[in-house]
Amino acid sequence: MPERIVLAYSGGLDTSVAIPYLAEKMDAEVVCVAVDLGQGGEDMEAIRRRAVDCGAVESIVVDAKEEFAADFCVPALRANALYMDRYPLVSSLSRPLIVKHLVAAARRYGGTVVSHGCTGKGNDQVRFEAGLAALAPGLKVVAPARDFAWTRDKAIEYAEARGLPIETSKKNPFSIDQNLWGRAVETGFLEDIWNGPTEDVYSYTSDPAGPREADEVVITFEQGVPVAIDGRALTPYQVIDELNRRAGAQGVGRIDLVEDRLVGIKSREVYEAPGAVALITAHMELENVTVERDLARFKRGVDQRWGELVYDGLWFSPLRSALDAFIAEAQQHVSGDIRMTLHGGRATVTGRRSEDSLYDFSLATYDTGDTFDQSLAKGFVQLFSLPTKIAAARDAKNG
Amino acid sequence: MPERIVLAYSGGLDTSVAIPYLAEKMDAEVVCVAVDLGQGGEDMEAIRRRAVDCGAVESIVVDAKEEFAADFCVPALRANALYMDRYPLVSSLSRPLIVKHLVAAARRYGGTVVSHGCTGKGNDQVRFEAGLAALAPGLKVVAPARDFAWTRDKAIEYAEARGLPIETSKKNPFSIDQNLWGRAVETGFLEDIWNGPTEDVYSYTSDPAGPREADEVVITFEQGVPVAIDGRALTPYQVIDELNRRAGAQGVGRIDLVEDRLVGIKSREVYEAPGAVALITAHMELENVTVERDLARFKRGVDQRWGELVYDGLWFSPLRSALDAFIAEAQQHVSGDIRMTLHGGRATVTGRRSEDSLYDFSLATYDTGDTFDQSLAKGFVQLFSLPTKIAAARDAKNG
Amino acid sequence: MPERIVLAYSGGLDTSVAIPYLAEKMDAEVVCVAVDLGQGGEDMEAIRRRAVDCGAVESIVVDAKEEFAADFCVPALRANALYMDRYPLVSSLSRPLIVKHLVAAARRYGGTVVSHGCTGKGNDQVRFEAGLAALAPGLKVVAPARDFAWTRDKAIEYAEARGLPIETSKKNPFSIDQNLWGRAVETGFLEDIWNGPTEDVYSYTSDPAGPREADEVVITFEQGVPVAIDGRALTPYQVIDELNRRAGAQGVGRIDLVEDRLVGIKSREVYEAPGAVALITAHMELENVTVERDLARFKRGVDQRWGELVYDGLWFSPLRSALDAFIAEAQQHVSGDIRMTLHGGRATVTGRRSEDSLYDFSLATYDTGDTFDQSLAKGFVQLFSLPTKIAAARDAKNG
Amino acid sequence: MPERIVLAYSGGLDTSVAIPYLAEKMDAEVVCVAVDLGQGGEDMEAIRRRAVDCGAVESIVVDAKEEFAADFCVPALRANALYMDRYPLVSSLSRPLIVKHLVAAARRYGGTVVSHGCTGKGNDQVRFEAGLAALAPGLKVVAPARDFAWTRDKAIEYAEARGLPIETSKKNPFSIDQNLWGRAVETGFLEDIWNGPTEDVYSYTSDPAGPREADEVVITFEQGVPVAIDGRALTPYQVIDELNRRAGAQGVGRIDLVEDRLVGIKSREVYEAPGAVALITAHMELENVTVERDLARFKRGVDQRWGELVYDGLWFSPLRSALDAFIAEAQQHVSGDIRMTLHGGRATVTGRRSEDSLYDFSLATYDTGDTFDQSLAKGFVQLFSLPTKIAAARDAKNG
Repeated sequence: MPERIVLAYSGGLDTSVAIPYLAEKMDAEVVCVAVDLGQGGEDMEAIRRRAVDCGAVESIVVDAKEEFAADFCVPALRANALYMDRYPLVSSLSRPLIVKHLVAAARRYGGTVVSHGCTGKGNDQVRFEAGLAALAPGLKVVAPARDFAWTRDKAIEYAEARGLPIETSKKNPFSIDQNLWGRAVETGFLEDIWNGPTEDVYSYTSDPAGPREADEVVITFEQGVPVAIDGRALTPYQVIDELNRRAGAQGVGRIDLVEDRLVGIKSREVYEAPGAVALITAHMELENVTVERDLARFKRGVDQRWGELVYDGLWFSPLRSALDAFIAEAQQHVSGDIRMTLHGGRATVTGRRSEDSLYDFSLATYDTGDTFDQSLAKGFVQLFSLPTKIAAARDAKNG
Repeated sequence: MPERIVLAYSGGLDTSVAIPYLAEKMDAEVVCVAVDLGQGGEDMEAIRRRAVDCGAVESIVVDAKEEFAADFCVPALRANALYMDRYPLVSSLSRPLIVKHLVAAARRYGGTVVSHGCTGKGNDQVRFEAGLAALAPGLKVVAPARDFAWTRDKAIEYAEARGLPIETSKKNPFSIDQNLWGRAVETGFLEDIWNGPTEDVYSYTSDPAGPREADEVVITFEQGVPVAIDGRALTPYQVIDELNRRAGAQGVGRIDLVEDRLVGIKSREVYEAPGAVALITAHMELENVTVERDLARFKRGVDQRWGELVYDGLWFSPLRSALDAFIAEAQQHVSGDIRMTLHGGRATVTGRRSEDSLYDFSLATYDTGDTFDQSLAKGFVQLFSLPTKIAAARDAKNG
Repeated sequence: MPERIVLAYSGGLDTSVAIPYLAEKMDAEVVCVAVDLGQGGEDMEAIRRRAVDCGAVESIVVDAKEEFAADFCVPALRANALYMDRYPLVSSLSRPLIVKHLVAAARRYGGTVVSHGCTGKGNDQVRFEAGLAALAPGLKVVAPARDFAWTRDKAIEYAEARGLPIETSKKNPFSIDQNLWGRAVETGFLEDIWNGPTEDVYSYTSDPAGPREADEVVITFEQGVPVAIDGRALTPYQVIDELNRRAGAQGVGRIDLVEDRLVGIKSREVYEAPGAVALITAHMELENVTVERDLARFKRGVDQRWGELVYDGLWFSPLRSALDAFIAEAQQHVSGDIRMTLHGGRATVTGRRSEDSLYDFSLATYDTGDTFDQSLAKGFVQLFSLPTKIAAARDAKNG
Repeated sequence: MPERIVLAYSGGLDTSVAIPYLAEKMDAEVVCVAVDLGQGGEDMEAIRRRAVDCGAVESIVVDAKEEFAADFCVPALRANALYMDRYPLVSSLSRPLIVKHLVAAARRYGGTVVSHGCTGKGNDQVRFEAGLAALAPGLKVVAPARDFAWTRDKAIEYAEARGLPIETSKKNPFSIDQNLWGRAVETGFLEDIWNGPTEDVYSYTSDPAGPREADEVVITFEQGVPVAIDGRALTPYQVIDELNRRAGAQGVGRIDLVEDRLVGIKSREVYEAPGAVALITAHMELENVTVERDLARFKRGVDQRWGELVYDGLWFSPLRSALDAFIAEAQQHVSGDIRMTLHGGRATVTGRRSEDSLYDFSLATYDTGDTFDQSLAKGFVQLFSLPTKIAAARDAKNG
């Protein structure tokens, strides 16, 4: 019986061509798995059928939208995950979930090899293969682009020679990965880092400079999880989806940076993540109101490490579990409402309200009703600064 | 001979009234020191004379604009100092410099006591007194608002009874601190954290929603220090001043957050820092291009600690010196140009260019000219993820 | 009805004298609470009766030995808590538990004031009062030594004048705090930090230089909790108690350091903690065997912060809860046996064995049976060091 | 003209056999470089001649003892570098220095290839090649053990077939790396981690349990650098060498741990580092006396990262430079004397004395002369614990 290869299938040129190519080269059968992560675009059933038309022996679509939102986007939100303080981990979050469904398909359909379309110089190969190493170390991995030096030009030639039912004429200059949490774009002219992005790079967001009315939104969180918009109870998927539309319409969430890839090089990346940016902005301010100072200070380091670890493809690592345990405890009181204005590319918090607030008007006010005992301050100031004072006296003495 | 009190003098009601009050209460002479930190507003000479008119035996103005920019704002910029990821440390930066000039005045004019207008529930008392403890532990400190429970109402009554040459009728609802690096505003209705700020709160920035043309700027850095705008060589003071105007005109740099004060309470603060926000945004992206990954990752923790330490009033601490030594080394290559569009409240980097760039087109490109050896990736991926793989195998074995 | 003061009672001179002194000075009744933390020494019932004899209206003893071991010492062990890499937090761990029982007694006996014997320059006042602020913010606190400048000489004079049933003649040069987790000693001649401790300073440990046979012990952990010695199942209290005896007999666990107190000064402290040092040594090595590398590296920072936080008296802080959640997750696999030799002041691990071991003989061996694929190394080395290589090339180019 | 290979030469079987093997296999000439790092053992001139006898066209010895001590061991000491809190980085420190001299030899003798004896599963290959990538990216690298799967058995067979002047009959069960800073031992029976080391594993240290007189030593530091022993001025090399002898004679510095290798596996390692352990112990205590609290707390994280980075082979990374800048600033006042007793495997500090001490007897004492103002404590305690108090009140309110 021929070996079965389970292929992470996107419906695009590269993975479509991979179906007959892998079958032939490895004398195997190909099972295709397309995962719906809320990326929108083409109909998933059309994608599924295309795989069959290209020669897959099995082709399935997994609707993972709610799972992706609840189990991957929400943890990233609770960690305020912004790699290099900017990038909300769009692709990094999806890879471990795709791996999980590839492994499930391998078990169901008797697959012994897993295949993906990543190249050897990006991060996603690491995320795929680190995930596979954790979930199913017995599966072999083959990545045609990396392992067989398979290029786009070769793919087009191959598709045309075989008459594969896939569009090859359209020259798309953009390399795109998108899902519910955002969209990543790479393209030739942006590889010159002095060039700014043009408007056609973007798809999730309108031009922030366009004229329009501001949109005011109230987001409700329970323990760091967004549960409602404007008072309507929603699932995490629905919250993110609605904010992608509303914040996207206001031009919120465009990101353009030079980024440190895991494989050791710097690359230039353009992202759009309207919902993610709006939610993280709201969540951070709700934490400001509800999380105690020492905990908040330490959590910044935890959040940074969480983002680096997931960016680096180590979703299934023991450290991620332990960081998540810290974060879960820190989110116990991150409940309440954030009012936010979406407008002109800006997501601006204008109000916060919470039963779990640590903001105490009577301690903070300078007006009547002040309950803060100012006489305590003198002792505090003097002992708090005593180590610095002693060190300065030492330095003065020794010149 | 009466004791001499050196008073940090702003020209406002509280410190004006403090002149005769302290003189009388402590049977002392008052020497006033007003420090020009680029705060704009009233003429400094008028402020100087007012102190004399209120009874000061000496009254001096120190022009510290360039010193403040070079020795306090630039280090904050090199540390990307944003307390709680948001606040660029406006007041925290000025206090140690004011302290330095108070101590100099005390030495010159024979002062034995230093006085400031801070209350007992804010951060600035700590910053003043921690600074004094380090620079001149022998000086006594008196803070009328804190130590004598001196309130604004008492001050008005006192001023009117004595006929002091100071405006008391105008009811100003805002408590403001401003300098070259930004402006902080507190006011009664913002103490309800569900209220959004109104437009009259702002002075350094125009309404970001107003219609106007975008402004494109190129900022040049040498070792993390901004040295030119649009090719014109400028001092740090001039750079910040020009960007305050240009970014401020575009509504850049408004900040509204609930913040953890050093004295243990949360307070709601509104800031404007157009130049600071534009510069930090540019500087962070230039670091992305020129700073090696491991160094960049570690520097985030250093930057966070720098911001907390300076916010907490410990400018003169040994830890600040050591963090600055780290940062200075990390800035060796942070040189080059950042092109940025200021528009609609957004400061958006659109280009970067540097002789010290670590971005290597030939390694990053997916086009012809690629020099990255993809065959190396497989070994990297497998050893990089080996610890996670071994742990997952252990977990699988043990159920 | 007079107010009731709940006093943390040790049985010693200072707190005995405080009974009539506080009753008289504050026109109140005194309720005494003595907590058994495994400190050994005097019989707890004798202590209880002495309080009554000195005038307490109620006097209780709380047997908190097992609670202290399980809820305070074990968490410290799982955090490898060593303040300044040396001190296992002896006193810091006991104060929050004493506070808990003081608050319970206040509720049971109608107390409205709590009193303790700490001075104003030590850490323990902070630990007591931070604990009380968290558990019972409505209770007032009075600390005679600090608030009434009550000294030992005054106490002796007072005791003799009133004929209190307490020994005053014996001049004890040592100030001691001890419990199950260790013993802290301060004394006049050690305040000269050039002086070494003399043998009479120690009580929990024999002279390590004395001749004796080595003692080999096998400690079994489950999820970071010690559960057996030499195969005998024991409670945490029993484990610590037995190791105090066995490691103490071998001179293990003497510590002498200059330490940073929370109140801003450095002090010189001598400790003995034979059981704690033996257990932490064993636990760290079992973590080396069972905890994945990235998790282990991050946990060092968590452990350090845990130790500082608890040393600083913030046991009841939200940050401690979140750090404990991280640690609990990290301890899931810290199960197995450590064989250790106790001898001559040394606790030396000689063997480890665990079902959860991540040590894989077949990967580690250089002998026959090696399964490590060395061909992977070249790719790993090159990509791992690529950022440094690119930075070095940049530096070489720019001279 | 044949290519020239510069070989890191130890004088042992593997690298001796590599001389003719590489010459033949790569049709090249071999230049041997032996570096004297204070490892003791065989005469360096004998080693040099053996290389010639095995066919090297050039063979040099570099006396790098003082350089190694001053530029590698001292920075490690100032960083208190203990990987996993235990291992003083013996081999990790030597590799970058050997690389430096290999590169110098390649330039001098026209080498285009560099060779080392490391396998593909250890850390040292990474340290060699990361160093070469930084210092001389143009040089090729060949590692026979890894790249040609060259084993010890093959080496013996080859040596005997060619009649190489090298001992092959003696079966040495130990794999050893040693230098001035310590000695690392691996051997078959220790790969079972339940086995304890036997006495014949050790060479730098005597059995700590043996009977002998204690040795008291006074070590003088200037800015973190050891400059004298017992009042005799010495170079860093001389200090370490003398302490290796004196501490080694007392059995100080034996280390046995399971360690996380960079290549992703755990291995069991036994080390001896008598001088390093004695010096780090002394240095840490001198830091306790002279370094301000906040700086000391932050430095622990810097020290940990320094150790991990150097262990991981990234000596030449920009992060190491920046960490060293921090450490240099932190060492400004780490000057003074530490008195230490070496005995029975213990290095125990018994006294410290420094012109730069921050320990202030008059603040610390409980006796007459106390200058600490205890009245300041109440305000300090209350504001310090205010965030925890507010959080606890919130939790109580919300149940």
